[in-house]
Amino acid sequence: MTAPGAGAPHASSAVAVEAVVRTAGPAVAALMERVEQRLSQLAVGHGPALARHARATIAAGGKRLRPLLVLLAAGEAGVDDDADRRLVRAAVAVELVHSASLVHDDVLDGAPLRRGAPTVVAEAGRIAATATGDLLFSRAFAELAAGGEPDDVRTLSSAASALAEGELLQRADAWNAGVDLDRYLHRCELKTGSLFEAACRLGALASGPSARADALAAFGRRIGLAFQLLDDVLDIAGPPSRTGKARGTDLLDGTVTLPLILARERDPALATLDLRALDGAADAEAVCERIAATGALATAKSRALAVVEEARDRLPDLPQRQRHLLELVAAGVVERYA
Amino acid sequence: MTAPGAGAPHASSAVAVEAVVRTAGPAVAALMERVEQRLSQLAVGHGPALARHARATIAAGGKRLRPLLVLLAAGEAGVDDDADRRLVRAAVAVELVHSASLVHDDVLDGAPLRRGAPTVVAEAGRIAATATGDLLFSRAFAELAAGGEPDDVRTLSSAASALAEGELLQRADAWNAGVDLDRYLHRCELKTGSLFEAACRLGALASGPSARADALAAFGRRIGLAFQLLDDVLDIAGPPSRTGKARGTDLLDGTVTLPLILARERDPALATLDLRALDGAADAEAVCERIAATGALATAKSRALAVVEEARDRLPDLPQRQRHLLELVAAGVVERYA
Repeated sequence: MTAPGAGAPHASSAVAVEAVVRTAGPAVAALMERVEQRLSQLAVGHGPALARHARATIAAGGKRLRPLLVLLAAGEAGVDDDADRRLVRAAVAVELVHSASLVHDDVLDGAPLRRGAPTVVAEAGRIAATATGDLLFSRAFAELAAGGEPDDVRTLSSAASALAEGELLQRADAWNAGVDLDRYLHRCELKTGSLFEAACRLGALASGPSARADALAAFGRRIGLAFQLLDDVLDIAGPPSRTGKARGTDLLDGTVTLPLILARERDPALATLDLRALDGAADAEAVCERIAATGALATAKSRALAVVEEARDRLPDLPQRQRHLLELVAAGVVERYA
Repeated sequence: MTAPGAGAPHASSAVAVEAVVRTAGPAVAALMERVEQRLSQLAVGHGPALARHARATIAAGGKRLRPLLVLLAAGEAGVDDDADRRLVRAAVAVELVHSASLVHDDVLDGAPLRRGAPTVVAEAGRIAATATGDLLFSRAFAELAAGGEPDDVRTLSSAASALAEGELLQRADAWNAGVDLDRYLHRCELKTGSLFEAACRLGALASGPSARADALAAFGRRIGLAFQLLDDVLDIAGPPSRTGKARGTDLLDGTVTLPLILARERDPALATLDLRALDGAADAEAVCERIAATGALATAKSRALAVVEEARDRLPDLPQRQRHLLELVAAGVVERYA
């Protein structure tokens, strides 16, 4: 889980997001368009040095899954201009924090490519990439602060703290084959769940004082957790033709994820495996096979699907249409794996 | 200027800050104490992984010059509990952003020591250090957002963006001996002036709606600029026994600063100097000597002192006591060099 929610180039989430937006109708589509426009404005508006890297980062474009969650958690869009402005700001801010974390992750991994394009660190070096991440990060808070809603800023800053804490935890646990399930799940919630949670909470807050904000935030956290669990399964399951990266990349980074945690209870050789002893892609591939042979991938996948189910089941009382759209997002997260 | 405001281990600013706090009296001293307490709370309150690195970073303790500026820009402390709480939050947030930027700078420079203690990157590696910086950064915004003052968040996020932009600009200009004066000054304002400016503006804002906020912010920007100019002069002037680092560290990093910009107009050999050709400390030392021989250090220092003068002269109408304390800070910035 070196790149939370980075997804794979061939994953189907981009398609899923588009499909949900189409289903959601013109009001949501129009807001998503405003989010895109604002993101490009931010990329060009701050001097040549920033413009180059920030534009590349923002324009390379994620799936915009988090901005979509902001809009859907709000319920009906297009009802009130002020609420819409607040939603767009929140969606932009969430995507900026996500982008910032990806840029920093790429620095730490020395990653050459993301979504098929050269990373900022590959193109411009560590200094420019670290600064670009910091800048996207501060822009996110500037964007939210412009709205004058302290609750929104609090929500995002808490998520951003969790994200950084998750990264620290991952670092602290690197190469430690003894990491247990609770600690792993906690890390996933920090690294990925927290920003999905913030996206849903921000959407709920923008639609007015809402008793549903906590419940929608919990939905977001679960969806984010499931997203990360499936990402980690894909790292072991491959195939590379689908994920766009070699199998077992996490293992080579010393990152212990759910499949290995489950598999080591079933295979004594895996229980005593020292990840540092892995020497290159062929070794990693062999461990992936061994993990797969224990049936751990299926168990891990079931666990992720159960989390998605739980997310769906615990959705609060919502208008039919809003519920349907959020369920489509949940289904889209699962489809990434299918 | 790789480490904005990092100061030198033997610089006298710590002493200057203490002296100003003593002069300011018990109300300011009490608030500074609350700032320290809150900073330590933040260091211990977020799980073991964070605690270790964040505590080290925060506790290693800067001079707390920026927090002091927040308090002094507010005028009388201890008058109103709400205003005091807001001041403490702002002072803590500014120091956290400063710490975050230092941690990231150390990552980029691979710096082994800061203020005589091992850096986070030296102790825990790049991943932990980058995450620690991100975390301090988000904590800063969380701290301000807790106060519910959108203007405060806007002020800090704008400074944090400027800081990152300054870092990007420095990177873009690295090894470019043709960097001109305007561009250099712009970079210094972004990298150092902006956070000093924010400190003063935050203080002014906390003391109520104030027409003086802009003027105090301008004072902060100028003081920050002078601080950076003198830092850059010290890099060339040394001596190492005083600055705690070899002369010409900036030159070896490819960072063109004021002394070189001035000196290359006076010495043709410096005008055609390629910084990439410098091979180690002895080469850098020789260039420092050559720069010094042109008289550029004295000119650069005069320029910095003129900026401090301007900062003093343009102070708005203030209570006698507040003006005196701000002038003491200005004098302290100059004393760093003396």
